[in-house]
Amino acid sequence: MDYILHGYWRSSATYRVRIALNLKQIPYRYVPVHLVKEGGEQYSADYTALNPAQLVPTLINEAEDVMLNQSLSIIEYLDETVPDICPLIPSHRVERARVRALAQDIACDMQPIVNLRVLNALRDGFQANDDDVKRWAQKWVVKGFDSIEKRLQTQAGKFCFDFNVSLADVCLVPQVYNAKRFGVDMTMYPLISKIYDNCQALDAFQKAAPEAQSDAI
Amino acid sequence: MDYILHGYWRSSATYRVRIALNLKQIPYRYVPVHLVKEGGEQYSADYTALNPAQLVPTLINEAEDVMLNQSLSIIEYLDETVPDICPLIPSHRVERARVRALAQDIACDMQPIVNLRVLNALRDGFQANDDDVKRWAQKWVVKGFDSIEKRLQTQAGKFCFDFNVSLADVCLVPQVYNAKRFGVDMTMYPLISKIYDNCQALDAFQKAAPEAQSDAI
Repeated sequence: MDYILHGYWRSSATYRVRIALNLKQIPYRYVPVHLVKEGGEQYSADYTALNPAQLVPTLINEAEDVMLNQSLSIIEYLDETVPDICPLIPSHRVERARVRALAQDIACDMQPIVNLRVLNALRDGFQANDDDVKRWAQKWVVKGFDSIEKRLQTQAGKFCFDFNVSLADVCLVPQVYNAKRFGVDMTMYPLISKIYDNCQALDAFQKAAPEAQSDAI
Repeated sequence: MDYILHGYWRSSATYRVRIALNLKQIPYRYVPVHLVKEGGEQYSADYTALNPAQLVPTLINEAEDVMLNQSLSIIEYLDETVPDICPLIPSHRVERARVRALAQDIACDMQPIVNLRVLNALRDGFQANDDDVKRWAQKWVVKGFDSIEKRLQTQAGKFCFDFNVSLADVCLVPQVYNAKRFGVDMTMYPLISKIYDNCQALDAFQKAAPEAQSDAI
């Protein structure tokens, strides 16, 4: 098996890459990096050598001697490496830009502000309690989904863009998973919820679910 | 002039797009969206209609009737639209992934956590004062640059990737500009600093500088 994915079951960015690997029908070995246990395995010397940012995921393709970080970059690499199975980026320039932008609406403007290390920094730096942290997370997820729900009104079909799964869906599903954890009321987002359900009906998404991973607790 | 860029002089994401437009030699009209004045012009009904996320930048290409958000997505669109002038994404799959990943190290893992709306939320939600906000910003910029400086040791030349300007440099320069505003000690980062200086020697970067914009104060 050429591909090795270092990640964490609940990490949204790792979840995206698992979905993409499954959609592209690429077999891979999954190596858990526990973000909480013993202060976080991502800070170990071994993992830091793989990924100096001490973040997950890291993807290794041994056949090409390639080691990559950043989920969106990894997914585009997979898409360019296996272009014929379930293309995740459309072929037309303008459509490509729209799909990437929606993915980045999530991967740049939502997830980084509500991920584990930022929530921990709020606890450490500002004595934020559980309620504060939940309010913070909800605020950014609601802000992001309000905007995405509007964008989807002009373009969505069965999935974010018409009737094909794309990078946008690969990012949307883990973000909805997180939103539910934070107690966001998803009934405010009928289009996002419909697309989430349509994705979850696919095997590739089910197998990538956090609870289906070997390191889930 | 077909291209219209809605942005803000000090916005890091707008700064990236200005650099890219200049490098690609694409003339454009700049429409300032003041992020502070009167509670923020990005929240106006007119701007929200352009960009429901109420973030800058938004790029319009009237010739194609295209309206795009997200700086990285916009820059890849420009690169695919004008491929022959100063390519910002390399042609080989693996190199493409590395350039995108470094850009995303900045655009996903650094900038979103220290941008204006997050710093304002710290003030509003956690009574953060100026010192708290500065410490928060420094923390994430230092964390990000520590990791990027290490990555650059294996690959950097005159620019982040060898001797050609890429998407990574287009993201790096605005982040260094921000780091200086936050008082980060850049002598810790000799490679980043050298690349920053090499970029700043180019006309395209100089013309994109925040202080060179019509809305700079």
